[in-house]
Amino acid sequence: MKQLLVIGIGAGDPDHLTMQAVKALNRVDVFFLMDKGPAKGTLLDLRHEICRRYIVDHPYRFVTADSPERQRGEVDYPTSVEDLNRAKQATFERLINDELSDGQCGGFLVWGDPSLYDSTVRILQSILDAGRCAFEFEVIPGISSVQALAARHRVPLNSIGGALEITTGRRLAAGQVSDAASVVVMLDAEDAYRQVSDPDTQVYWGAYVGTPDEILIQGRLGDVADDIERTRKAARKAHGWIMDTYLLRKP
Amino acid sequence: MKQLLVIGIGAGDPDHLTMQAVKALNRVDVFFLMDKGPAKGTLLDLRHEICRRYIVDHPYRFVTADSPERQRGEVDYPTSVEDLNRAKQATFERLINDELSDGQCGGFLVWGDPSLYDSTVRILQSILDAGRCAFEFEVIPGISSVQALAARHRVPLNSIGGALEITTGRRLAAGQVSDAASVVVMLDAEDAYRQVSDPDTQVYWGAYVGTPDEILIQGRLGDVADDIERTRKAARKAHGWIMDTYLLRKP
Repeated sequence: MKQLLVIGIGAGDPDHLTMQAVKALNRVDVFFLMDKGPAKGTLLDLRHEICRRYIVDHPYRFVTADSPERQRGEVDYPTSVEDLNRAKQATFERLINDELSDGQCGGFLVWGDPSLYDSTVRILQSILDAGRCAFEFEVIPGISSVQALAARHRVPLNSIGGALEITTGRRLAAGQVSDAASVVVMLDAEDAYRQVSDPDTQVYWGAYVGTPDEILIQGRLGDVADDIERTRKAARKAHGWIMDTYLLRKP
Repeated sequence: MKQLLVIGIGAGDPDHLTMQAVKALNRVDVFFLMDKGPAKGTLLDLRHEICRRYIVDHPYRFVTADSPERQRGEVDYPTSVEDLNRAKQATFERLINDELSDGQCGGFLVWGDPSLYDSTVRILQSILDAGRCAFEFEVIPGISSVQALAARHRVPLNSIGGALEITTGRRLAAGQVSDAASVVVMLDAEDAYRQVSDPDTQVYWGAYVGTPDEILIQGRLGDVADDIERTRKAARKAHGWIMDTYLLRKP
């Protein structure tokens, strides 16, 4: 039987790796790398660095696949993600069939936590359900950017006894947000915090959290929204990409 | 200056510790232990085991404080938590003033992640705001039981592009829940999943996740709710306490 490990590697700091993740890394014969887009170089460097740092006396190799890109604009968002996942599924099947022998172990290194806004687990389950590939797989949790953000701001995610909503910039921009006292926004490509009507909302924003490039801004949304927008724009220009997250807390 | 470290130690598996947490453990001179209730013995054992396993050549000692208990029944929930936190604040101030010298480092070992339904960070911020104690503090994120649950069930927490609500059993039982496609319930003392009206909801339930006592149940809520209720009751009786979490996914 082939083994697959989906390993959460944390939010960008190699010290985010857990002992469980390090043990998992040391079982992997072939790492599948699927990074794409402007952050590709940085993400690949981090993965190589993690393997160099933590793998001891176990031979391994990297296989890089051309990662399909999501089609933008023409179809609605869930459909475009489903199309993308089907294309990724075909890629994953090819990698598992062609690059892994029986008894070998393949690894996917997932930024943050594999359970939050990452498609690897969903795609592997789809492949198993379709019955075209046989393998066993395990998931190793990792520190998400949400947790790294809260830790660096030294702020609880929830208010006392209150609910926390974790959502996307797309949903916030469309007004599809609950009345939870605390809302964490991920994948915001469009400065969706601009849509929040109450300027007394507290915002805790961070980019590249846990890396040497980390930027943190917090305060009353009415006071710091302009600063966040300027900072995001400048950081995206300087790095070619941005990975940011924020917590909104009702006053 | 005194230093304090709030260290997330994960959901119960010592392998959940991150490299960052291990480095933090090795800076601590005095660990403050505040556990209480029927799980106290198990929680203390886990903390001692983690220190034995990961601290190398750094002397440390434990200080155990009588942890105040939340008053039940007579006052409303947020008030009882605020009262409890004031009592805890007084305890923390005493520990920091009496047990730590200038230049020394104190540590709080927090089950799961310090940002999710834990009061340590909030209490330390309150003490700083009140200005009665001077110290610096850092927060080290940890694997939460939510992430451990999702990893063991090999399921994503969010649906594609969908929101995730993390909430309490108390809120679910009171019907104070949003229409998020995915809801994670923590701190459920009253089988609140019984309040979910749609029997086609998928549930992913787990107790003692990441420990040798782990129990996992998943399926259609209408099919497995009785099984979960029976299993919870039996497990609480056998262990004297239960720590469980579940994910509800709309059909």
